[in-house]
Amino acid sequence: MPATQSVNDLIEQLKWRYACKKFDPTKKIPAEIWSQLEQALVLAPSSYGLQPWKFFVVMDPKLKEQLPAFSWNQPQPKDCSHFVVLAIKKEFGPADVDRLVNRIVEVTGAPKESLEGYRGMMLGSVSRMSDKDKEIWNRSQLYIALGQFMAAAATIGVDTCPMEGFIAEKYDELLGLDKKGYHAVVCCAAGYRAADDAYAARPKVRYATQEVIEHL
Amino acid sequence: MPATQSVNDLIEQLKWRYACKKFDPTKKIPAEIWSQLEQALVLAPSSYGLQPWKFFVVMDPKLKEQLPAFSWNQPQPKDCSHFVVLAIKKEFGPADVDRLVNRIVEVTGAPKESLEGYRGMMLGSVSRMSDKDKEIWNRSQLYIALGQFMAAAATIGVDTCPMEGFIAEKYDELLGLDKKGYHAVVCCAAGYRAADDAYAARPKVRYATQEVIEHL
Repeated sequence: MPATQSVNDLIEQLKWRYACKKFDPTKKIPAEIWSQLEQALVLAPSSYGLQPWKFFVVMDPKLKEQLPAFSWNQPQPKDCSHFVVLAIKKEFGPADVDRLVNRIVEVTGAPKESLEGYRGMMLGSVSRMSDKDKEIWNRSQLYIALGQFMAAAATIGVDTCPMEGFIAEKYDELLGLDKKGYHAVVCCAAGYRAADDAYAARPKVRYATQEVIEHL
Repeated sequence: MPATQSVNDLIEQLKWRYACKKFDPTKKIPAEIWSQLEQALVLAPSSYGLQPWKFFVVMDPKLKEQLPAFSWNQPQPKDCSHFVVLAIKKEFGPADVDRLVNRIVEVTGAPKESLEGYRGMMLGSVSRMSDKDKEIWNRSQLYIALGQFMAAAATIGVDTCPMEGFIAEKYDELLGLDKKGYHAVVCCAAGYRAADDAYAARPKVRYATQEVIEHL
């Protein structure tokens, strides 16, 4: 088993992480770091590997400035370095199963016939779900990507702030997501904390381990 | 900004990660590693910090052996080292807001009165949601914990397998979750891959970066 950090270091990094309320707008994540960190999103696990998502990274200052108005005036979208909008596909169905099957063939070289069983299983799952249930299922997968992204960023000293407090329809319109067939679900600001963000120094509030973990 | 690994190392670990289909049943995660790794769950971010969850860690071989029957006969629950069932609270309401407020007071020493605004905001959010919407919201938070846990495990060379394919009601009953007021949402097996798990050597299938990431 390879390991590039000790468990102690890992946990220190996760303790260091917090929901950054005030980013330093002058500090940008270097492009070569960011392009790698994006892979934490690309590589995120999802149910059946279906990747029912797209990640929109807002970097244009003119766009970023318009986001707080639709985010209860939170400044993070404007002041962070890279602002990620995690979006689900508005329509999700059999075509998405075939898209994945074709990609498996392309990447692995497996004969398409050998994937018939897997394809049938996925089609069965997708066809049994109502549109609402598919949406809930797909939304859940985005939160895996969010969790992986925040943990990954923490291990390399990049700050983040997850955000559910925004008007998704306004984001969809402003960023052109709806026209592309996507819908914003949750966001994550990334960058570096301002030296005077008072929240950084506050003790992290978690329930006692014995309250949230139970051994069976 | 502290950082205990480089972004290159991080991404190598995330590429090394895969949904382990065959665990080596003889390899157990050492207790001192596991107790730390549990903190990746405890420290996971959640909306408002409400932590609407409990993590049940199944280690008893007799219990683990019974799980595949309710998991489409997947062997991971039985063969892995530690099997985590991520569960939401069946009832979630104003009492959970007050529980968090009390914990903030306990951990930070902030006067309770100073938290009235925050409390009111959380109560407003919770009271505006239907039971179904609260459940969807809380379920989403569990997937953040799942994502953080899998990414964290990968950085220290621990294998995982996320699992949605199980009969939640049977798990609730067998593990006694329902009696404790919880409901299983998603699971994650953790341990070490068997040397002959064919899935480990397969290329990871992800859509091309330019298909899932778009810069705005």
